[in-house]
Amino acid sequence: MNYDRVYNFSAGPAMMPEPVLEEIRDEMMNYRGSGMCVMEMSHRSAVFQKIVDEAEADLRELMGIPDNYKVLFIQGGATLQFAAIPWNLMKNGKAVYIETGAWSKKAIAEAKKYGEVIVAASSKDKNYSYIPDCSDLDIPDDTDYVYICENETIHGVTWQKLPNTKGHVLVSDQSSMFLSKPCNVKDYGLIYAGVQKNVGPAGMSIVIIREDLIREDLDPKMPIYMRYDTHAKNGSMYNTPNCWDIYCCGKVFKYLKSIGGLEEMQRRNIEKAKILYDFLDSSKMFKGTVVPEVRSLMNVPFVTESAELDAEVVKATKAAGYDNLKGHKSVGGLRASIYNAMPKEGVEALVEFLKKFEAEHK
Amino acid sequence: MNYDRVYNFSAGPAMMPEPVLEEIRDEMMNYRGSGMCVMEMSHRSAVFQKIVDEAEADLRELMGIPDNYKVLFIQGGATLQFAAIPWNLMKNGKAVYIETGAWSKKAIAEAKKYGEVIVAASSKDKNYSYIPDCSDLDIPDDTDYVYICENETIHGVTWQKLPNTKGHVLVSDQSSMFLSKPCNVKDYGLIYAGVQKNVGPAGMSIVIIREDLIREDLDPKMPIYMRYDTHAKNGSMYNTPNCWDIYCCGKVFKYLKSIGGLEEMQRRNIEKAKILYDFLDSSKMFKGTVVPEVRSLMNVPFVTESAELDAEVVKATKAAGYDNLKGHKSVGGLRASIYNAMPKEGVEALVEFLKKFEAEHK
Repeated sequence: MNYDRVYNFSAGPAMMPEPVLEEIRDEMMNYRGSGMCVMEMSHRSAVFQKIVDEAEADLRELMGIPDNYKVLFIQGGATLQFAAIPWNLMKNGKAVYIETGAWSKKAIAEAKKYGEVIVAASSKDKNYSYIPDCSDLDIPDDTDYVYICENETIHGVTWQKLPNTKGHVLVSDQSSMFLSKPCNVKDYGLIYAGVQKNVGPAGMSIVIIREDLIREDLDPKMPIYMRYDTHAKNGSMYNTPNCWDIYCCGKVFKYLKSIGGLEEMQRRNIEKAKILYDFLDSSKMFKGTVVPEVRSLMNVPFVTESAELDAEVVKATKAAGYDNLKGHKSVGGLRASIYNAMPKEGVEALVEFLKKFEAEHK
Repeated sequence: MNYDRVYNFSAGPAMMPEPVLEEIRDEMMNYRGSGMCVMEMSHRSAVFQKIVDEAEADLRELMGIPDNYKVLFIQGGATLQFAAIPWNLMKNGKAVYIETGAWSKKAIAEAKKYGEVIVAASSKDKNYSYIPDCSDLDIPDDTDYVYICENETIHGVTWQKLPNTKGHVLVSDQSSMFLSKPCNVKDYGLIYAGVQKNVGPAGMSIVIIREDLIREDLDPKMPIYMRYDTHAKNGSMYNTPNCWDIYCCGKVFKYLKSIGGLEEMQRRNIEKAKILYDFLDSSKMFKGTVVPEVRSLMNVPFVTESAELDAEVVKATKAAGYDNLKGHKSVGGLRASIYNAMPKEGVEALVEFLKKFEAEHK
């Protein structure tokens, strides 16, 4: 059906699959004979418990999450996790962080409140346009974990090969690449993602954590809400969770399964991103800002020769139905976020538009 | 229209007004020509900023919130606020709490992590079935604030007259009574409410705080997400907020305005609750558990002579389309939560059903 929807290149919250939105709409007044909307359901009811159980089971199946990992649904966004991670995981009070852009930088600032943070590698010298070599880092033995932001939403770089942690626990912020490709969960101690970029509406993070990392001997000052053991022991329902988000994410998990899972999603994402990067590489007006080897499949920052022309492009694309192409305020330029739910047709149409714009503005 | 909806007596998440759900459904695929669902909108976009601005303005109008109070939209539920409040507000490290039921008890436990907590009055001796006299409490001069839970969702007691704080700041958890009646905001330093009981879907608290209580000289260990100044300085958008919840709550605010505001809502709530309490007072089988003077208009706990009969009633009511009448696991019995969105017809129908049940089980 034609709903006059635009192609929305927002970095998050971002597009959701149209069939998922249709299902949510159709279940609004009465979810499957329950007589109520999911927003109205007691989180302690059988009908909602089934929703959360299915969501978790589908996510486990999609990612192949081993049994010794817990899946937690927690409010507060990645921002609250920036504090929760060091506070819960720093046993020796020491962690190694790799600085690859705005989001790892924010995580570093917050982690410093809870222990010693060693920034073992950084790409700050070239404005976070690459991923530093992390094959042989100097990691102290008593390091509690090594932290990366696996896809930097603002700077558009993504890790192609995980760092060599030398046996230490790997923690990854997958917010803007979550479920965009297969993931070997066993390589990580903790994976987390704010869901509003590649899965559902804003308001929840998913934390996938190896059970042995969930501690009880924690700082007594830690809010009960921030303790992973609180959520783990109570099936993410110590208090009322973001039920609506669990429901919406659950639908997206089922949708991903229906199209063939993460392998197929990756195939589509590679195909989609190639259309845009090929154009940027051939254009004389538009240039990608990231070295080819670590370009993100999800967030594609690019620039013209001037901020004025950038602004003109943003204005013209918006008028033509390609929304939210303005780069993040901290870096400027343009950015096309092409998450899972962005159809190939959206990227093709954008590229056609940019080609035409370039031809007309020679 | 008939959607075969049930009367849902859940203590929260709970019923929402049907016209609000219809509007949300109708805007699902394309919000007012934006070409996208609200769940897909960048929180930095003009279209979403208008949604959040209108929500705040409507709430301010409904409650008559003075200009020197900030309205904050924060994730994490009341549970996170149990820690945020003492951590942000305890300047002298001392607060007075009044213990009136399960939720004030939880708030007390959490507050003890951040300073000295003086429980100046409690109704624990009679299983929280009344509100203690707080007209002349012993409050130390250097007390940072006096804390109450203004309506205890589980125990069904509500404050009819605020405590005499002797000039100290009053903090109130209004979660299960928020917007159920007019509120003189000036009487409080901070009001907060998890929205999932009387307003919108779970996943957000609204914090209304007098500006002079927002501090910057805070414990450096406090997560940036938990600092009120973080949210206040950034219009609740330091990080991505629960956009969907703001949207839904905004619709409920407009709905409340359309029916005549909080005075009319209170009139309806009194009328509704009276139907149920009058029945309980006249029944030989069912008895309310709270002293009449402080009975909640929102949460009505009641019991039969035995746990077995309670369970039988829960089963029979559910089968008849009156859902979620089971009392909280910590107290047992039955509980009818009759929040703003429960129509009078729902309470009338429940009472008719209970009368019939009583007649048949004599």
